[in-house]
Amino acid sequence: MGRPVRQPPSPSIIGVSIAGGVFKRVLVGRALRSDRLGETLLPKRLALPVFATDAVSSVGYATQEILLVLAAGGALFYHWTWLAAGAVCLILLTVVASYRQNVRAYPSGGGDYEVATTNLGRNAGITVASALLVDYVMTVAVSISSGVDTFLSTPALTHLRPHKVEIVLGCLVFMMLINLRGVRESGKVFALPVYGFMVGIYGMVLYALARVVFFNDTLLAPTAHATVVPSAAAPAGFALVFLVLRAFASGCTALTGIEAISNGVPAFKEPKPKNAAATLLIMGTLAVGMFGSITVLSLYTKVRVTDSNANLLINGQPPVHGQETVVAQVAQAVFSNFTPAVYFVTATTLIILVLAANTAFNGFPVLGSILARDGYLPRQLHTRGDRLAFSNGIVLLGTFAAALIIGFDANVTRLIQLYIVGVFVSFTLSQLGMIRHWNRHLRSEPDVAVRRRMQRSRAINSVGFCATATVLVVVIVTKFTHGAWLAMAAMVVFFLVMKGIHRHYDAVKTELFTDVEAETALPAKVFAIVLLSKLHKPALRALAYARATRPSVLEAVTVNVDPDETAALERDWERHDLPVPLKVLDSPYREVTPVIVDYIRRIRRSSPRDVVTVFIPEYVVGRWWEHLLHNQAALRLKGRLLFMPGVMVVSVPWQLRSSEAVAERLDEDVKAPK
Amino acid sequence: MGRPVRQPPSPSIIGVSIAGGVFKRVLVGRALRSDRLGETLLPKRLALPVFATDAVSSVGYATQEILLVLAAGGALFYHWTWLAAGAVCLILLTVVASYRQNVRAYPSGGGDYEVATTNLGRNAGITVASALLVDYVMTVAVSISSGVDTFLSTPALTHLRPHKVEIVLGCLVFMMLINLRGVRESGKVFALPVYGFMVGIYGMVLYALARVVFFNDTLLAPTAHATVVPSAAAPAGFALVFLVLRAFASGCTALTGIEAISNGVPAFKEPKPKNAAATLLIMGTLAVGMFGSITVLSLYTKVRVTDSNANLLINGQPPVHGQETVVAQVAQAVFSNFTPAVYFVTATTLIILVLAANTAFNGFPVLGSILARDGYLPRQLHTRGDRLAFSNGIVLLGTFAAALIIGFDANVTRLIQLYIVGVFVSFTLSQLGMIRHWNRHLRSEPDVAVRRRMQRSRAINSVGFCATATVLVVVIVTKFTHGAWLAMAAMVVFFLVMKGIHRHYDAVKTELFTDVEAETALPAKVFAIVLLSKLHKPALRALAYARATRPSVLEAVTVNVDPDETAALERDWERHDLPVPLKVLDSPYREVTPVIVDYIRRIRRSSPRDVVTVFIPEYVVGRWWEHLLHNQAALRLKGRLLFMPGVMVVSVPWQLRSSEAVAERLDEDVKAPK
Repeated sequence: MGRPVRQPPSPSIIGVSIAGGVFKRVLVGRALRSDRLGETLLPKRLALPVFATDAVSSVGYATQEILLVLAAGGALFYHWTWLAAGAVCLILLTVVASYRQNVRAYPSGGGDYEVATTNLGRNAGITVASALLVDYVMTVAVSISSGVDTFLSTPALTHLRPHKVEIVLGCLVFMMLINLRGVRESGKVFALPVYGFMVGIYGMVLYALARVVFFNDTLLAPTAHATVVPSAAAPAGFALVFLVLRAFASGCTALTGIEAISNGVPAFKEPKPKNAAATLLIMGTLAVGMFGSITVLSLYTKVRVTDSNANLLINGQPPVHGQETVVAQVAQAVFSNFTPAVYFVTATTLIILVLAANTAFNGFPVLGSILARDGYLPRQLHTRGDRLAFSNGIVLLGTFAAALIIGFDANVTRLIQLYIVGVFVSFTLSQLGMIRHWNRHLRSEPDVAVRRRMQRSRAINSVGFCATATVLVVVIVTKFTHGAWLAMAAMVVFFLVMKGIHRHYDAVKTELFTDVEAETALPAKVFAIVLLSKLHKPALRALAYARATRPSVLEAVTVNVDPDETAALERDWERHDLPVPLKVLDSPYREVTPVIVDYIRRIRRSSPRDVVTVFIPEYVVGRWWEHLLHNQAALRLKGRLLFMPGVMVVSVPWQLRSSEAVAERLDEDVKAPK
Repeated sequence: MGRPVRQPPSPSIIGVSIAGGVFKRVLVGRALRSDRLGETLLPKRLALPVFATDAVSSVGYATQEILLVLAAGGALFYHWTWLAAGAVCLILLTVVASYRQNVRAYPSGGGDYEVATTNLGRNAGITVASALLVDYVMTVAVSISSGVDTFLSTPALTHLRPHKVEIVLGCLVFMMLINLRGVRESGKVFALPVYGFMVGIYGMVLYALARVVFFNDTLLAPTAHATVVPSAAAPAGFALVFLVLRAFASGCTALTGIEAISNGVPAFKEPKPKNAAATLLIMGTLAVGMFGSITVLSLYTKVRVTDSNANLLINGQPPVHGQETVVAQVAQAVFSNFTPAVYFVTATTLIILVLAANTAFNGFPVLGSILARDGYLPRQLHTRGDRLAFSNGIVLLGTFAAALIIGFDANVTRLIQLYIVGVFVSFTLSQLGMIRHWNRHLRSEPDVAVRRRMQRSRAINSVGFCATATVLVVVIVTKFTHGAWLAMAAMVVFFLVMKGIHRHYDAVKTELFTDVEAETALPAKVFAIVLLSKLHKPALRALAYARATRPSVLEAVTVNVDPDETAALERDWERHDLPVPLKVLDSPYREVTPVIVDYIRRIRRSSPRDVVTVFIPEYVVGRWWEHLLHNQAALRLKGRLLFMPGVMVVSVPWQLRSSEAVAERLDEDVKAPK
């Protein structure tokens, strides 16, 4: 005995799709086997589009957010854009360099959460996790909203603008379905538009250069001659510094998504850390290039955008249908003589921004699964669903994002105020953790060459820490009242919930694993009772089963609610001459449950070392409304009996004919060939 | 063996309140014992208010509905009121006389449903039942709405009129709570206002007589000088006949509720049939008297009411805050020199109309319980809840009525169009059934005196049948397009649902009771498996219990979802050296349920005559959110296993500490002293 036996799966279960019915299989695709997990690993050319959409796509709105902030002082203040955008590029490259160290040191996919937990302790880890969870939700909401904004900026689509929220939600559902199908196919779906977007933006730069240099054309955005009404007196001194800092903080949205690769290292092909670091560098370079290009072009073409429509006057009138996005305006200026290219740029921007949400859909369920494994989130999030994707996490993320989109009317500028606090909390703690990491390793590393590499890495991470910490402070100071407080509150809530769940699981674990040996003692006897009200087949089956378990004592028990029915049962009982005594419990209040509970309690009291087994015949029905017509009393009783220690509840199912169809449908799911 | 044993309830359960917690006990009161059911029987002086509220209170709106219809032709057509109201009185007395035969012949409380089923067959019975169910719902909605209307007619309460729907719903909830407390206390609660209402109305008549005869005063309603704008050309010929018929049909609302006593005979004190018949006569006389008085006074004081506010011009202007009810206007006219009496009349009208709903709250659950007993409604409705009241039915009725009130904005005139179709369907079929009843008895009755009494009864019922059938035709013809179709559609729905439920229960019964002996055969062996994933106390308890049941084969089974966890379990298993083999099922798709189902299916296939017992350790938690953190996989598995024939599912509960508080609370409910 004692030695465990391995049981291979039966042939019928090998190569099986185990989804929940045809509908789910069509939407979500077939289930994948564990040993096929390797097939879903990504080469660099597919990993880039999958993990870089967020970071690359944010150029679609980063420039615009800088201009929006500066517009508060009037169009003259746009020249500060150079400073704010330059600082953003610098920070971006610093963070990319720092994260290249992270992915090499922590290739397991725990990302910032793992770095912070390992080096700074559990609370730092959960803080990072809270920040990332909030950030993922924000990424989904902001990206999709911004993409739809750009698309609706096309003059031909003006009439769709009132339906923006619905369109955004539609895109969100589309994203969820794609992601429920699994990572691999996502890679293929996303490669084309991501590369298309890059071609569009860099093509735009080349085309603009060509027009300006060779043809000496003047490129002007639709709003180039618009007046920007300053929303306050021209800021100077500290107010000016604050304004530029706020513009910089808004521009830092360009950095969001860089951490995605560090959370996704396990999805890369071998050698994972090297490929991930290389992809990170490519991504950073591309992002800086595109962000810079769009910023330069927007200043050159004199794009004007303002926070409020009322502050932008075109021929003395505010725009009737709202403003167009910076990317859309630049594209209209550059391709003023070649309209199809305008559509190409806005369409790829829409697609890449919608797909940027994909980074979050890749990251959130992975992080959720890791947190569930560590006991910070409900265990259900730990199980992979069909298609090897973490369905529960995907659905949860989609729900949160939908709530944000509806709550903020899919307004990017309002949503963006909640953004990036989370990212920079995560950046800062992660870099601090990396510094500690190198310190720890330096203490024990004798090899000089290795030490030099470590010291170099530590220097990079230190610069990264200083930079991200500074930005975090700037972001909190300049954006707190604009909405960052809400993101921080959400982080606190996530933090407390995760701590609470962990404490609960810990307490339960202590309860379940303390003094385990005590539970190996066998109960003295088994006292079995079969509950019944009529002598029909389910009752007789329950009796037969109960007798087959050969308990020490076996009784049939009925509660006398209706004297006529009880008398009929007693007559039937004598007629069948069953070898089991029938006990009739009187019930002065015609209630069933308390009478039975009371009876069992008396059995338990008279012999506390026995275990009481309660057999309940139960109807299994196939249609939802049949539940209303059956089993109500049995269900209530079962729910109550579970609270009694020393009582086992045995459901003896009786499958009504209507249940057969359901059973067959369930079987088909199991047996369906691969 | 074989001979049933009676088990008296334990002392702890005698004199017990079994409600669900303190809250319920405060709201609903203590539970009553079966043998105290007799105490809730009603003497005539209490039965009258309980069962007569509906019939008596409808005088609060019957006159008004006649005037409203006739106003379509202008104020001149009010003189047709005499004709319509006279016909209503005649019909009312006829129906009272008929129903006195019913209660004597069928004193069991089945009322019209029983009469129709016994004499005309099941379909007629369910038709009557459908009609009555619809009618009860209507009674609740119309009575409460009308009562609140009257009350808000008091000039001082004008400002509350916009909140009418909320006030109506508040009264409805109040009614539900009172009725959940049981019949007896209701009787006491209702006696005072019902007698108060009678005093108010008859007092008003006497006071009016005194003023007119002795003081020669002129009594004028507030709208006496208002102009009624005809809503169509003055009707003549057939249109006039149709208008008067429609007024008569509307006035027939005065008859609703007469059948209530025939459904409530068992609640009377002995001799039940005699007391019920006497109460019926008193009620009818009082109702005719009050209806006549209000009609005469309304014509004398020149009350003007119209369907639409726009058609009533007071000094050339429509009333700003809506119109006042007829009763309120008559009271203001009669008591123009004694305002407190106006308040008394409107207040008692409010109360009695709100309490009229009580007739339905008494009748609906009783009828529902009878229908449930006969298998036409879900069995839950058959069980008496706490306080001997049929809680389920009361809650159901309240829900339907609330839906109607919200759907029709608590507008009496719109609601009343749906009313009385049901009543008269029930009246007509019931009288037809009574004719058949007497015919059947006359065939076998030899005693001449008895025969003469029977013939007299049959004559009365025949007159009743002709009268009610005529009214039914008039009601359907004149009101079909005004809303009666909706009530008829609801009746058809109830009818079909009840037929469907009955067919279902019949089919199940056939399934359960056919070839019963086959189920007495014992299964050959018991093959037991204990499902576990870790070796903690719940798992060990499940193992110990499983071993105590001494099955033929016993295995512990785990599904290999996470190889690390499985390895840990295998190590633990060997360390504990448990005398049970552990079988590890491989799961290529990391799913649990299908792998276990597949395994059990193979066991069943290899030895079909065995029964498989599946032991599942289950956490019992005390807080709602803990359900999210535990048992999800176990629940899904249990749900699936129930569909497999030959499988018993055993829940071995492990009570987490948090569940103890719940268990104690449940215990307190059981142990609370009477």
